[in-house]
Amino acid sequence: MNEVTIGICGLGTVGGGVLEVLSRNADLITERSHTPLRVVHVSTRYERKDLEAGGITVSRDYRDVIADPGVQILIEAYGGTDHAGDIVRAAIRAGKQVVTANKALIAEQGNELFALAAEHGVSLRFEAAVAGGIPVIKALREGLAANRIEWLAGIINGTGNFILSEMRDRKRQFADVLAEAQALGYAEADPTFDIEGIDAAHKLTIMAAIAFGMPLRFDAVYTEGISTLTPEDLAYADELGYCIKHLGMARQGEQGVELRVHPTLLPMDLLLANVNGVKNAILVEGDAVGPTLYYGAGAGGSATASAVVADSIDLARQLSANQGCTVPPLGVTPAAVRDLPILPMGEVKTAWYLRLTAKDEPGVMSQVSSILGAQGISIEALIQKAAKGGAKQVPVVVITNIASQSNLDRAVASIEALDVIVAPVTRIRVETLDGQDG
Amino acid sequence: MNEVTIGICGLGTVGGGVLEVLSRNADLITERSHTPLRVVHVSTRYERKDLEAGGITVSRDYRDVIADPGVQILIEAYGGTDHAGDIVRAAIRAGKQVVTANKALIAEQGNELFALAAEHGVSLRFEAAVAGGIPVIKALREGLAANRIEWLAGIINGTGNFILSEMRDRKRQFADVLAEAQALGYAEADPTFDIEGIDAAHKLTIMAAIAFGMPLRFDAVYTEGISTLTPEDLAYADELGYCIKHLGMARQGEQGVELRVHPTLLPMDLLLANVNGVKNAILVEGDAVGPTLYYGAGAGGSATASAVVADSIDLARQLSANQGCTVPPLGVTPAAVRDLPILPMGEVKTAWYLRLTAKDEPGVMSQVSSILGAQGISIEALIQKAAKGGAKQVPVVVITNIASQSNLDRAVASIEALDVIVAPVTRIRVETLDGQDG
Repeated sequence: MNEVTIGICGLGTVGGGVLEVLSRNADLITERSHTPLRVVHVSTRYERKDLEAGGITVSRDYRDVIADPGVQILIEAYGGTDHAGDIVRAAIRAGKQVVTANKALIAEQGNELFALAAEHGVSLRFEAAVAGGIPVIKALREGLAANRIEWLAGIINGTGNFILSEMRDRKRQFADVLAEAQALGYAEADPTFDIEGIDAAHKLTIMAAIAFGMPLRFDAVYTEGISTLTPEDLAYADELGYCIKHLGMARQGEQGVELRVHPTLLPMDLLLANVNGVKNAILVEGDAVGPTLYYGAGAGGSATASAVVADSIDLARQLSANQGCTVPPLGVTPAAVRDLPILPMGEVKTAWYLRLTAKDEPGVMSQVSSILGAQGISIEALIQKAAKGGAKQVPVVVITNIASQSNLDRAVASIEALDVIVAPVTRIRVETLDGQDG
Repeated sequence: MNEVTIGICGLGTVGGGVLEVLSRNADLITERSHTPLRVVHVSTRYERKDLEAGGITVSRDYRDVIADPGVQILIEAYGGTDHAGDIVRAAIRAGKQVVTANKALIAEQGNELFALAAEHGVSLRFEAAVAGGIPVIKALREGLAANRIEWLAGIINGTGNFILSEMRDRKRQFADVLAEAQALGYAEADPTFDIEGIDAAHKLTIMAAIAFGMPLRFDAVYTEGISTLTPEDLAYADELGYCIKHLGMARQGEQGVELRVHPTLLPMDLLLANVNGVKNAILVEGDAVGPTLYYGAGAGGSATASAVVADSIDLARQLSANQGCTVPPLGVTPAAVRDLPILPMGEVKTAWYLRLTAKDEPGVMSQVSSILGAQGISIEALIQKAAKGGAKQVPVVVITNIASQSNLDRAVASIEALDVIVAPVTRIRVETLDGQDG
């Protein structure tokens, strides 16, 4: 099997993340790409003898990576727009496929860069430039390609959303939360790009261009920041049933396209209003599909690397494809489909909701909790209500800790055998899906 | 420019939706595909002189569509699994690219069908088979390809979710809501597939196979329905801070893969717990990106057509691509990028939140509402509080109807000129994003 070779310019948060993901998931990525993706050359200002020992050429100068004829895909992870622009242009001219996470570069110089890429017959890919690891560029450009996109609205700056979430939930002042966000590393030392909406405007520019088939018009985006918002406004909005979000909004109307980033009140029952903390989400309205929403981590080395590597896999699939299909039906090459063992339900572990119907007598809970305890199951929450009117039986509702179905089966059988339990036990699994906010 | 030709077997909800979307958005789709997608042959049991007049061959027998050498992409929209399986197999053998929305067919016969497609060097695509118009197959297979998928959890049956939402919100019994869902057309006359989780199990089977690179194992999915849930359980769950959802869950653990569909309590602060009505959503946990969520319409002719046509566009992009990139950077071919007019902000219309600081005197609101009225702006909601302690000024908060920024600017200037207004007016836009639940 052939391989596809990668060069990375810059090994900071993004470049380092890419290297880490490519190495950790190398086997999986090979199965998905038809071919191994091998990093052969990187540029960084630091010594990296560890990489050299692994056979990777390490250069101080990014020009050496671009000049390396052994590099097929060049990942620009340099940051900024000056050198990054030079890197991307030089790489395109050298006939490389190029991947970048650089939203400012694409939003401000994309029109010119895409033309250059077309001229040289290469791809310039930028999934990571919008909303980090959320594959929203792919959704807009491919998944929703059948639709006329009417509008899209996004929470596309995690720092700003974190600040607004904190201001509302803890009634804190803007400046106070900003200082904390800086200490936590969410916000840059110069937070202007985030809080004044420039970063969001970059992302909105890119999404709008794809949604509406128009050039990148960063110059035309109206931008209003969040620094003047007060906890009072957030509280009044709340009282009226709204949540204030820093929203990027693009709409295609009959008179023209709206491109705007500003604080916005959203009705609280919208899913988008419930996106909190550093997370991003984009709601897209298509004429055929209606509204669809994409949610996830909008920043961070690992999430950004997820998108950069996905772009690289797309390119590798094209570069290495035989005739016909480039994406295998189950995502991995047919030979790599593995008949994984299925876990029997008895061994599946979840927390449990149990509803018991008990005689209204003392001592019920002590018997129940002792039976549960014998199976290693503890009670995390409990509702026990007094009998209504002359009722002789009462409901008892319990949430347990995490237990296997086998253990729970045994406990429930013993509980149902109790004299004080007068009906079959209702049992429903509980999942906390840890990680959604992690 | 060449064209890519399409045949459709079956013109029911899905097939009819596909025809409608391909026709309505024909120009857009041509710009996105490099090439027109033209329907040349359909099979249906009804007369369709309108289609024949448009140059489309209409056959009674689907075999005629498959046998038509002029058809490049065959869309199976016949439904069921018996004839649909025959159609897909025959089309593959005839060397067609095949697109289907048929989840039962893919979940139950996919392993065999994919092998057959590989043997004949064609693609069999099925984005619409899971969660209708939400491009979640593409996200799993391409957008998240850099990740080891740890688990995924989905609300993937709209009928079931509608029933549970109604049971909770209106404290109604299962049978009662089911009858309504049937009357509304959400639920089939035989609702077993929906309420017993079989439909969800089909979709879970497909997602798990792609997420974990394993064969389709519909036979191995544990399935528990929602027909035994009571409004009492939903109310107790609510009291404990949970929402009950019919969840499909696939997890890759060290001991094996979990594949299960069952009622599940989810903590209310999870985004997934706030997906209500007929909507679908899937939360996917990847090792690099963390959690991402995909939300939208999981059924309906138009949403399903969105995905079927997206698959067709993907195929057309491959079939018609020159060397190099198949997906243009801005989604449409460079020549089709249009420099659309940008709407000036003065003409952008939104509702508005206004916070006024007024002297604690009578008559303030009448002056304010008269100024707003003169600009055609009315008040939709209002908070006016008594002055606290000895305060001489009070906040007045207003939500207006939809008004252009120019009109609002004029109104605010007049309001700020009032004697009784003692501070600049705070103004924030309000968006209702109508359509999220539409």
